[in-house]
Amino acid sequence: MALLVQKYGGTSVGSIERIEAVAEKVIRYKEQGNDLVVVVSAMSGETNRLTDLAKQIDPTVRGRELDVLLTTGEQVTIALLTMALHKRGYDAKSYTGGQVKILTDNAHNKARIVSIDAANLAQDLKQGQIIVVAGFQGVDEHGNITTLGRGGSDTTGVALAAALKADECQIFTDVDGVYTTDPRVVAEARRLEKITFEEMLEMASLGSKVLQIRAVEFAGKYEVPLRVLSSFEEGEGTLITSDSSEDDSVEQAVISGIAFNRDEAQLTINGVADTPGVAHQILGPISDANIEVDMILQNVGADGTTDFTFTVHRNDYDTALNILNKVAQDLKARVASGNNRIVKLSIVGVGMRSHAGIASKMFEILANEGINILMISTSEIKISVVVEEKYLELGVRALHDGFDLAEYETE
Amino acid sequence: MALLVQKYGGTSVGSIERIEAVAEKVIRYKEQGNDLVVVVSAMSGETNRLTDLAKQIDPTVRGRELDVLLTTGEQVTIALLTMALHKRGYDAKSYTGGQVKILTDNAHNKARIVSIDAANLAQDLKQGQIIVVAGFQGVDEHGNITTLGRGGSDTTGVALAAALKADECQIFTDVDGVYTTDPRVVAEARRLEKITFEEMLEMASLGSKVLQIRAVEFAGKYEVPLRVLSSFEEGEGTLITSDSSEDDSVEQAVISGIAFNRDEAQLTINGVADTPGVAHQILGPISDANIEVDMILQNVGADGTTDFTFTVHRNDYDTALNILNKVAQDLKARVASGNNRIVKLSIVGVGMRSHAGIASKMFEILANEGINILMISTSEIKISVVVEEKYLELGVRALHDGFDLAEYETE
Repeated sequence: MALLVQKYGGTSVGSIERIEAVAEKVIRYKEQGNDLVVVVSAMSGETNRLTDLAKQIDPTVRGRELDVLLTTGEQVTIALLTMALHKRGYDAKSYTGGQVKILTDNAHNKARIVSIDAANLAQDLKQGQIIVVAGFQGVDEHGNITTLGRGGSDTTGVALAAALKADECQIFTDVDGVYTTDPRVVAEARRLEKITFEEMLEMASLGSKVLQIRAVEFAGKYEVPLRVLSSFEEGEGTLITSDSSEDDSVEQAVISGIAFNRDEAQLTINGVADTPGVAHQILGPISDANIEVDMILQNVGADGTTDFTFTVHRNDYDTALNILNKVAQDLKARVASGNNRIVKLSIVGVGMRSHAGIASKMFEILANEGINILMISTSEIKISVVVEEKYLELGVRALHDGFDLAEYETE
Repeated sequence: MALLVQKYGGTSVGSIERIEAVAEKVIRYKEQGNDLVVVVSAMSGETNRLTDLAKQIDPTVRGRELDVLLTTGEQVTIALLTMALHKRGYDAKSYTGGQVKILTDNAHNKARIVSIDAANLAQDLKQGQIIVVAGFQGVDEHGNITTLGRGGSDTTGVALAAALKADECQIFTDVDGVYTTDPRVVAEARRLEKITFEEMLEMASLGSKVLQIRAVEFAGKYEVPLRVLSSFEEGEGTLITSDSSEDDSVEQAVISGIAFNRDEAQLTINGVADTPGVAHQILGPISDANIEVDMILQNVGADGTTDFTFTVHRNDYDTALNILNKVAQDLKARVASGNNRIVKLSIVGVGMRSHAGIASKMFEILANEGINILMISTSEIKISVVVEEKYLELGVRALHDGFDLAEYETE
């Protein structure tokens, strides 16, 4: 018998019919002998409806009262799902975030969980009750209602799993797992049975469609096994764990997946005097404009100057280029330039730690397709390259094929 | 400077425009130097929407989860009204019933208030905040969400006024006060400036359109001055107090109003042996069928038998008559009969305590119009008669006129 925390998102509980289907699914797990804590989001569309009401009063509204308003969405779902379980003859009880209680800081609209008092839940579980908890919400130390910000229901699920020492936190969503890459780009993309937290984080560009990054970080920190499954189809989904060594496969895949990001733009400033503090002089004004920087590269130049390149979100490209032109004048740099038709391709895998030559293999695969690499950046378990936008699909397919990702079919 | 508790019902907050109008109204009272606690209901239609969702799952659903569901309605309103006050530059803070905290028993769907911890509210009021409280809801001692049942927002207002020792509890509704009788029946019906709690309770058939009886009882018990006002028009409304002697008018009206009830039906059993326990033998089976009885009359007959008459709600007439026919056989009574085309007319007034001849004046007025009286029942401050339904309007107008109710115009 296992203790499972399951989380069902807005689409999964988007209508009375779907709530009834979730009840059936929960009961199947219960009948298999598991204890269940079920975290639910607001019915899809409900949060938007509430936000629209608030915006009619004040288009810029933030803060405490927005949380009071939005948390009603999940409260409706917990009541309806619990009713559906009761109708089927099962003991079940709903909990708001405050009732649990999920204690957060007081940063309304984007609060962070401080602690969870799981005593009441544990008591109810012992009596055989199915627990239904409102996701996305908590209370601060003064009893003010808070929300965890976007995607916070995933975080609620993971935090409850950690507090209850659950055997698994299962995130039910509209995809059936994490794939080696986006199946819309590579038809042969394969569902991964298992992936590490680190890999999942590095695959953010793929993973963010499946799981909130914050929930993955949280799960990694507290070592909560996390599983992504489909609400609508049967299947094992993808298990995300800290332990990759448990993998039964004798020959472990060197890399787990191909991530990509088409939202980036590249900015370069050439011929900057190579003196201490120059990086700060360039990026300080960018940061002051609230622009987030992703990749940063600095090359040693030939004549005591340096070339400095970084990437930003494509939406920030024009603003960033204007700032950089001013910086270039101040620094007497040769020229500032940019390119907003680029994409980032990454190969991700804990296996590359112990395998030499992965990077060169990646560059070879791309070279064989005639794809010119504009930037390279590496981390422990990820190698990223920036290429021209037009090479996105070709590059992803070539890498997916070149690293034999499709051939790991288990069926 | 006064402390006012104001309650706005579902129609008053039925749209964003109306919520903004309530904000404006609240601010006018605030600007007059008052402290304000504002109790609101769910936006009109919202409770029905939520109930419909629940009924799709289980048409007979009751209990804990229904309360979790329905309380979201008021929670939405408190957030929106507080946002509207913030937008206008006023300090305001919303409270759910649980946040106040309004402690109730655990009778879900019809809970009763046990106590109110007003310390936090008092603190916020001291800092000049406008307090916005969700009506209709509370929590039991274990933190379970409860609702006070139908019309419970009035009760929330009165209970808060009592706990905070407010100067007045103002119930804003869609009528501008309590009238001497229904203006749809008597065009000259006059708004009462003042009425006692007892009169208000006896005028239930009129009053229930304006105020929940339970809130009036509560206000009477804790001597909270209660004022009924219009949400949509300016005006003084009607003040409901325990103290009728404060009335400035030298010549106090003997009666305050004419109430009527067209939902009643009369049942009679004739020629019952006049023995102990006979009333129970007749009404026991009626009560067992969950039928509520209003008026009960027993007359001494001539031949050692008695005639027994009572009234029930018209919807229960057929069931009650069937039961009574069986009872008549068991009791060997002469005959059971009934009439579902009757109405009850009542004159109500604390003044009648000290005035003789009120009853005979009432009977005279009705006799002058050729109206035959079928039943009579009296209490301390009310005299009720049952007459044929066709005489309703004629009877009410004759009494309203005969007791000079229209002539007390103050304008």
